[in-house]
Amino acid sequence: MPQKHRVAVVGSGNWGSTIAKIVAENTKAHTDVFEEQVQMWVFDEDVQVPESSKHRSKYGDKTYKLTKLINETHENVKYLPDIRLPDNLVANPDLPSTVDGATLLIFNLPHQFISKTLEQIQGKIVPYARGISCIKGVDVSDVTVTLYSELIMEKLAIYCGSLSGANIATEVAAERFCETTIGYDPPPMDLKSDDGSPKDNLIKVDEQRQDKTKPTHVKLQPVPQDYPHVDGKLWDLLFSRPYFKVHVVRDAAGVSLGGALKNIVALATGFVQAKGWGENTKAAVLRQGVLEMVRFGRTWFPQSVDERTFTVESAGVADLVASCTAGRNFRSACHAVEKGVSVEEIEKTELNGQKLQGLGTAQSVWEFLSKHEKTEEFPLFNAVHGIIEGKASVDDLPKLLQ
Amino acid sequence: MPQKHRVAVVGSGNWGSTIAKIVAENTKAHTDVFEEQVQMWVFDEDVQVPESSKHRSKYGDKTYKLTKLINETHENVKYLPDIRLPDNLVANPDLPSTVDGATLLIFNLPHQFISKTLEQIQGKIVPYARGISCIKGVDVSDVTVTLYSELIMEKLAIYCGSLSGANIATEVAAERFCETTIGYDPPPMDLKSDDGSPKDNLIKVDEQRQDKTKPTHVKLQPVPQDYPHVDGKLWDLLFSRPYFKVHVVRDAAGVSLGGALKNIVALATGFVQAKGWGENTKAAVLRQGVLEMVRFGRTWFPQSVDERTFTVESAGVADLVASCTAGRNFRSACHAVEKGVSVEEIEKTELNGQKLQGLGTAQSVWEFLSKHEKTEEFPLFNAVHGIIEGKASVDDLPKLLQ
Repeated sequence: MPQKHRVAVVGSGNWGSTIAKIVAENTKAHTDVFEEQVQMWVFDEDVQVPESSKHRSKYGDKTYKLTKLINETHENVKYLPDIRLPDNLVANPDLPSTVDGATLLIFNLPHQFISKTLEQIQGKIVPYARGISCIKGVDVSDVTVTLYSELIMEKLAIYCGSLSGANIATEVAAERFCETTIGYDPPPMDLKSDDGSPKDNLIKVDEQRQDKTKPTHVKLQPVPQDYPHVDGKLWDLLFSRPYFKVHVVRDAAGVSLGGALKNIVALATGFVQAKGWGENTKAAVLRQGVLEMVRFGRTWFPQSVDERTFTVESAGVADLVASCTAGRNFRSACHAVEKGVSVEEIEKTELNGQKLQGLGTAQSVWEFLSKHEKTEEFPLFNAVHGIIEGKASVDDLPKLLQ
Repeated sequence: MPQKHRVAVVGSGNWGSTIAKIVAENTKAHTDVFEEQVQMWVFDEDVQVPESSKHRSKYGDKTYKLTKLINETHENVKYLPDIRLPDNLVANPDLPSTVDGATLLIFNLPHQFISKTLEQIQGKIVPYARGISCIKGVDVSDVTVTLYSELIMEKLAIYCGSLSGANIATEVAAERFCETTIGYDPPPMDLKSDDGSPKDNLIKVDEQRQDKTKPTHVKLQPVPQDYPHVDGKLWDLLFSRPYFKVHVVRDAAGVSLGGALKNIVALATGFVQAKGWGENTKAAVLRQGVLEMVRFGRTWFPQSVDERTFTVESAGVADLVASCTAGRNFRSACHAVEKGVSVEEIEKTELNGQKLQGLGTAQSVWEFLSKHEKTEEFPLFNAVHGIIEGKASVDDLPKLLQ
């Protein structure tokens, strides 16, 4: 009997719950390949069913554990209300038991919780598991850019790809047609040494990077042959829905970078929008954004990054266009200029405590570029940072891009 | 004494006048390379100065020749009102005298007038002139796609490149920052035959095309060596302004195709917008549009078309994004769905007699693809045509793109 893959989803915010819905729909549809039940780890909390929910009449205004509510109502009433989750998706408050026996791990949680979460499951996962990170952003610290997929590889010693695209969670959850990109390119696992013995399968995490500050070698375990082969086709089967079109590419770094760097560009187009300079100028700024995203990727991840990830994939141009038309960073930058205040001020006063990803990314990317003396090669990223810091004026943006 | 290039602009609509303003600003700035005066051919007509014009008080409600008004007020009061044109730009109602002695010819007129206009100047231009076509669109007839730059080459026996980008004329005229792309790749002119005599410099116009239905060889005359070399740098000098950033590429076909095919995609995104499916879906449709634009170019102009013209140049992605956000085709498609009428109906009732380029392009491109049995390789172009014709429903669009 061939083994089936067991799927676990780590994270249950609105994007986590949406992705969990998708994969659970597919494990149900392909029970020859996957175990039907999908465990989803939920950071448990006491919640009330919202007044607007159809479940309110049953639960009233008492508080319940979120996991209990999800498993009884098949709805994440707090983070993804009014969306029916498949019955075979099980909310689990215990992290180790969520990932227990899972051969396919989907990571989808806010980036600030990743390190701690990974520490809690180190040594408790299937050693030959494979992962996909749906986490937006990259970790830029001091002189190093680390992708969250890399962090997962380093901490768990498994290969991890990434998923990103023009995927506003609530729209995907409502099953409105969109596309996504999966970057997946594990090292070949079938190499033999000269004497015929299996080779150590190392991922040299840092080797894909131009900057070799953190040499980390991960020894990969091959997936046993009685499992369906874990490749692009398998991930396509797990994630593709009629309303969610998947394209698998090899460039996992580019896929992750697209979802992070687009937010800097979205801030810039928001500034331009507020100035009323029109669609030509906005399109020019967006185009320069694409070029700088490509340059950033090609400079620091030359082994992985393919320009086309940014220029033709959903994780690149599509996500960028959506973010520069209606995204939160775009709108906040626009409000800031209209009101004559800083973007930080808008973040504080208009976002109910939520953080604006573009601000952090613009700042950390600029510091990173400064340390490497590369700011001049990235005039748009540099200009956005200057404007945020109050050192440059939006009116100078065209001149800064010449 | 080195010779200076004389520049003539053929066409004086809003885009024609805008481009004439730009080149006249530059001939004035670079009198070492260009003759300062620029002739602009104006299809002369009797016009009144509009009531809103600052020149109204002087001219009242009498009618005057448009050329007289342009030369006296330095403003194209009818087609580009309230924009000051440089004093060294001269409106000329006579076509042959406009192009007389000009070594650099800029073509910028509505495509329906091109053939006749070219016939009027055949044999009357400088035989070693070089051209740039700013004409939007391509001529798709029966089984052949002809670029207007090709038509100019065939009819005038000069090499002609093309210019296109996210360039809404009134925004460029108001000097709001934007970018453009020039495609220019003439054959080398310095080849010698084996016996040392100059070779015939042929442009095999059809050779850049996959379809060889119209073998046309044009014998090119080299530009005399006492003129500044006509290359990308020279065109950059003639067109670059602080508010108009030029990038020169070799792919003249891709530059022309971008400005034509984008209108089909803009109709599609307008349909999606009206349905309220959100930014993910719109971005997915736009992305598929980019892929089909690339495929169209690579299939029929394999010698010229570079994917990057569509994915990273202003003539590609930037123009597409602007058109899919605020362009006329986008808005009309959106209105059509909102009102439950055909796009043709909107064209008739809301556009004051102006034609919607996307409708004609979608129709002729579809007929062309049909004749070549290629519609299946272009699902988005095919779907847009079906929707326009009332044979497909906008609701099926996601399914048609799967």
